[in-house]
Parts: sequence; C-alpha cells; structure tokens
Amino acid sequence: MTQHQRLLTPGPLTTTERVKRAMLRDWGSRNADFIALNRAVLDRLVELIGGGDEHVAVPMQGSGSFAVEAMLGTLVPRDGKLLVMVNGAYGARMVEMARYMGRAVVAIEDPEDRPGDTRRLEETLAADPAIGHVAAVYCETTSGILNPIDEIARIAARHGRALLIDAMSAFGALPLDAARIRFEAVAASANKCLEGVPGIGFVLARKDALAAAEGNAHSLTLDLAAQHAAMVRTGQWRFTPPTHVLAAFHEALVQHEEEGGVEGRGRRYRENCRVLVDGMRRLGFQPLLEEALQAPIIVTFRMPRDPAFDFLQFYDRLAAKGFVIYPGKLTVAPSFRIGCIGALGADDMHAAMAAIEATLGELGVANSRP
Amino acid sequence: MTQHQRLLTPGPLTTTERVKRAMLRDWGSRNADFIALNRAVLDRLVELIGGGDEHVAVPMQGSGSFAVEAMLGTLVPRDGKLLVMVNGAYGARMVEMARYMGRAVVAIEDPEDRPGDTRRLEETLAADPAIGHVAAVYCETTSGILNPIDEIARIAARHGRALLIDAMSAFGALPLDAARIRFEAVAASANKCLEGVPGIGFVLARKDALAAAEGNAHSLTLDLAAQHAAMVRTGQWRFTPPTHVLAAFHEALVQHEEEGGVEGRGRRYRENCRVLVDGMRRLGFQPLLEEALQAPIIVTFRMPRDPAFDFLQFYDRLAAKGFVIYPGKLTVAPSFRIGCIGALGADDMHAAMAAIEATLGELGVANSRP
Repeated sequence: MTQHQRLLTPGPLTTTERVKRAMLRDWGSRNADFIALNRAVLDRLVELIGGGDEHVAVPMQGSGSFAVEAMLGTLVPRDGKLLVMVNGAYGARMVEMARYMGRAVVAIEDPEDRPGDTRRLEETLAADPAIGHVAAVYCETTSGILNPIDEIARIAARHGRALLIDAMSAFGALPLDAARIRFEAVAASANKCLEGVPGIGFVLARKDALAAAEGNAHSLTLDLAAQHAAMVRTGQWRFTPPTHVLAAFHEALVQHEEEGGVEGRGRRYRENCRVLVDGMRRLGFQPLLEEALQAPIIVTFRMPRDPAFDFLQFYDRLAAKGFVIYPGKLTVAPSFRIGCIGALGADDMHAAMAAIEATLGELGVANSRP
Repeated sequence: MTQHQRLLTPGPLTTTERVKRAMLRDWGSRNADFIALNRAVLDRLVELIGGGDEHVAVPMQGSGSFAVEAMLGTLVPRDGKLLVMVNGAYGARMVEMARYMGRAVVAIEDPEDRPGDTRRLEETLAADPAIGHVAAVYCETTSGILNPIDEIARIAARHGRALLIDAMSAFGALPLDAARIRFEAVAASANKCLEGVPGIGFVLARKDALAAAEGNAHSLTLDLAAQHAAMVRTGQWRFTPPTHVLAAFHEALVQHEEEGGVEGRGRRYRENCRVLVDGMRRLGFQPLLEEALQAPIIVTFRMPRDPAFDFLQFYDRLAAKGFVIYPGKLTVAPSFRIGCIGALGADDMHAAMAAIEATLGELGVANSRP
C-alpha cells in the first residue's frame, strides 16, 4: 500500500515507511522481548530531556490528552490547588480536566496570539500560597504560539511551586533540558515531533514526586503512580499496551536519533516552517502570530477576505491533491492552520505551496489578504 | 517481516497479515475518509449485538480497561450505587475502579472456579433498593470461566436495575444479542475475539442511558457521553484516535464477517479449545474448570506437581519454539493459562501440543498431573 496523503496537521501526522512497517509483527506484551523494547523506549525518553536518576518515563495508553490528564490527576493532590496558564484550547482543556476530577483550579488567561503573562503568574503565586502546582503549555497548538516556558519555570521554582508542562507538540523538536528547566513532570505523545503513530502518550516525572503521589489519582487506568510502580516491579504495563504502536514508537525514536535528535529534528521543522510561511506570504496570506512567537510546529493563517476563498472547497481540493491540512479552526480569530511537522521535508512543503497556489487559481481567489 | 511467534494468550493476540498491513497508511483523523472508516466500524459493532436505533457504539482510546472504566464512570451517577459480581481479577478491577472514582460499590464474591451466584444477586437486589447498576463479567479471563450472563440479565431486569457487562474476552465469539439480553451497556475491545490490534476499546450503550449520563463522568478523557456527543456532532473523535489501530480494526471486522461473524468465529475457537484441552489431558494436565463452565477463550491448567516442571523454563522453551503462552497466573490456585483465540486454527493448536510435548521431554517431566 502506498502513502496516499501528506498530512500537514498537528497530528496524526505523516510517518515514515520504516515506522509503519515496524507494526507488521505481533508481540506478547508480557514477554521478555517486548519488555526490552518498552524499556529502550522509556530510557531514550529520559535521555531526551537530559534526565538522570531522578527522572522516570511512564507511558500511558491513549492520546496525548490521556497522558496530560494522568499527569494532573496523579500529581496534584486531591486537596491541592492548580494554576493553569491558558492562551488556547490545550490550556483550557487542563482547566476542564481539573474541574472533572474535582481539583481546585484557577487560570491565568491570555489572548491566543499573546504568550502567557509571566508578570501575572508572579503576582498570583505571591498572593495565593494554596497553589501547589502550575501547569503550562510549551507550544500551544491552538495558534502555534511558543510560551515562555523557561521564565514560567523560573518563577514557579522561585515560589517553590511544582511545574507541570504540556509539551505535546514541542517535545522532540524544541529544547527541554531538565538541567536548565526545573519541572515536576512533562507530558507528551509518540505522535507529534517524535513521529510515531498515535496511541501512546507519556509523562516524564521526577521520581520523588511520583512516589509521593500514591493515592492521589481519580482514575484507575490513568493512575500514573500505579502504572510506574507496576513497571518497576514487572517491566510490564498494567493493562494491555498498544504493542504495535509501541514498536512503531521505538522505530521512530531510532530515526529521531539518526536525524540528530532534538537538534536535527528541530532544524528540519524550522526549515519546513520557513518554506511554509515564506510561500504563504508570497501568495498573500498573513500569519496570525508575530514571527518571534511562532513555533516551527503549526502555523495559523488569517482567513482571506476574498469571498472566492471557500475554506471547505480549499480543504477538499488540497486533500484531493494529496495534502491534508487541519480542517477547521481552534482560534477565536477567523483562521486556518497548516502543520509543518511529521516525516516531511522542504520538498514536501514546496509541493504543498504549489498545490495551494493551483487551488487558489481553481477557486478564482484574486487576493489572499485577510 | 515474518510472524515470529504465535500468541496463545488472552491478548495481545495473533493477528492476520491483512490486519497488520492495514496499518501501512497514515490517516488524517478529521478527514472524510477516516470519518467514514470510523463510522463503518461503529455501525458494524452495533450490528454484532443485533442492536437497533436504540443502541450506539462509542469507541475509547486505550486498552479494554479504559472502556470499562469509561462505562462505569459515565453511566453510574456520582451518587449512584454499583453492585459488582466478582469471581476473578476483572470483576475485582471494576470494584477498584468504582472506589477510585468514589462511587458506592458492593460486591458479590465467588471463588474463581465457580460461576457468579445468581441467587445471592437476587437476594441482594431485593434487599438494597439503592443499587441502581449491576456489573458482571461475561467470560472472566482470570480462569476462563463463563458466567451466567442471561440469568444475571433476567434478574437485573426483573428488579429494574441497569446491567453493565464487561464482555471483553467474549465479544465477537460468544453470543450477545440485545434482543434476548437486556443491558444498559457492554464494554469490549478490538483486540480480543475480533482480532484487531490493541489500542481501542468500545462501549455499546443504550442511547437513552448515554443521554441521561451527561455530567456523571469523573474524567474528561474517559467521558463516554462527551465522546459520543462529539461523534454525533462531527463524526470525529474528541482527542486524537489511534488511526492505524482503527484501520486495522476495520479490516479485522471485515475478516470477522467473512468467517461468518460471531457464529463462525465461535466455531473456530471451540475447535481450538477442544484440540487444546484434549491434547493437554492426553499429556496428563488437568483443567481448573469443569467442562460446562469453560469458555472457548482461555484455559487454566493446574500446575503439575512433578518438581521437574519448572514453569519459567517451560514458558521460555515454548517461546523459543514460537509459542507464547501467558507468563504467570491470575488465579489463586497454582496454575497457568493457555489461550485459544486470535488468528490461529486447529493446525496451530496441534503444533502447540507437539511443542509442549517436546518441552516436557526436555525438562524430564514424567507426570503432568497436579
């Protein structure tokens, strides 16, 4: 079967043939060979943050949001209080998760095209000693904005509060060094910049925090502390892992390392992003974000004002040409999004630009300005 | 890549080459083609229980336990009371889930080699009107025992209580007909008798029950009502679905239908089970369960008394010969388990018997009696 489409989305994204072919084998999840494969994946994830003996990787079945909920539900005590930095749908989702599980939660809300306000974070922490945990999104996929995670970490550390990072769409392509940034835990997924297939998320946590978190969780299946304890004891997942997805993830991590790790992966994505933004600007489109705030992950473009630009038509015609972009918006501003991550290079982005230009011609769009 | 091993476990299990090759494509999870694929899977699942307009299938990321927890957490109200029939690890797990989420729960406990006691169920429901939901395991994978699900359903219905069924290791091979058995919901997985790969569970629920359950859930990601509502509205999963696993599940359902559906699948498994039990008896092994209680899914054998029978050696040598059995016991009785489900036929089971006989010879086991 050939690859039908190139996915220019924030995930599920395009994966390599090698990654997909790693799924052509069945594994016994309690057998020594699978236990070794799983161990290799977890060890590599700890290496990726420059973590040492004090850090541990715990995988979680499901999408990235399952890992984020497992992180919040396990690490924030039942009587704890969480502060969430919100400037998009993923920050808002963490607030919603906390409400579901009955944890006290406050939010610092900023517009989707502005980074999280660190001055207000500083003030809020100073004013409210009940807040034990701060949660923040590294790259907010809603708009593609980069949040000032270093500064957020410094402030949380200065006030002695634990930091929980949703690094979903950044992990593996943007730097996240445990030696430079103090955090209690980071959640991410196999299926973003690490270019595995969807079905597994993971949390990198401080061992001491996880040990102290026993009994916190609101959910058996999402209990990260129990998942970790079982893995220490037996090397096995508590409940059936998605074995094929894990095998693909292992292969994806090998390819990530071959490309030069976070450094090499980030370089390719930055080049993809440059081709995308330059090409779209040339066609008249306008990115939502200032250049300095734009992460090389996904780019939000303002919707053209020209009535000939019918987004559904645009989306369908691009898909028919083999390029699937994100079909809809998450931002408040009228906009659409094109991703630049996954197993794609500058050639693919140039091809996408050609397809977009041809599509605009077909639709009779004279002007792509918002 | 060739198939290395035949998995004689309750899952992850052996899948066909066709199912695995369905994973060689990337899908945009919000694109029309994936939405159609997903719809076909869900429609087929409703067909499998002979469900009509009043039933709906809701998929859930993760293992089967995630689907079970989503079912309990969404359908049992926060102030509801749950009764669980327990005669093995999976019944006990539902009690644990209810405790995690703070739902009132009582259990009717029976030994692992006895079916759930329906007389006590009758008495308990009569005595305690606060119990709104009864949960039971159809085939308890711990021992492989078949529970009297028809009788349990009749009693629950007579007392006007809702029934939630964990049909994990039965669904797709043992009959479950919505016209004959009244239930509020059934949870199962892609990776048992339907022979998909692991990573997706699902719940078949009555639409009215799901509609009434809004606001119950203890978890955002495990909120079945919200998952369903989003799917009705957009055709899409709320959070990234395991797209490759879903494509494999679709192919597995096609093959299930080609084999003659539940009827055909059940016939092959019964034959596999017969070859397994007859062959093991011939070698001196003794099944834990009486024949009438044995589901054709997984068989528990009592541990041989002969000190030459070292189970770890036995397991490793069988694995080296290409047969992976379950590496450990869940029962209280000293025992081990061999599965007879997955993409395997009588030939495979005969080959497994030959490998077991050879292994006993290597270990110098003179007598396999317990």
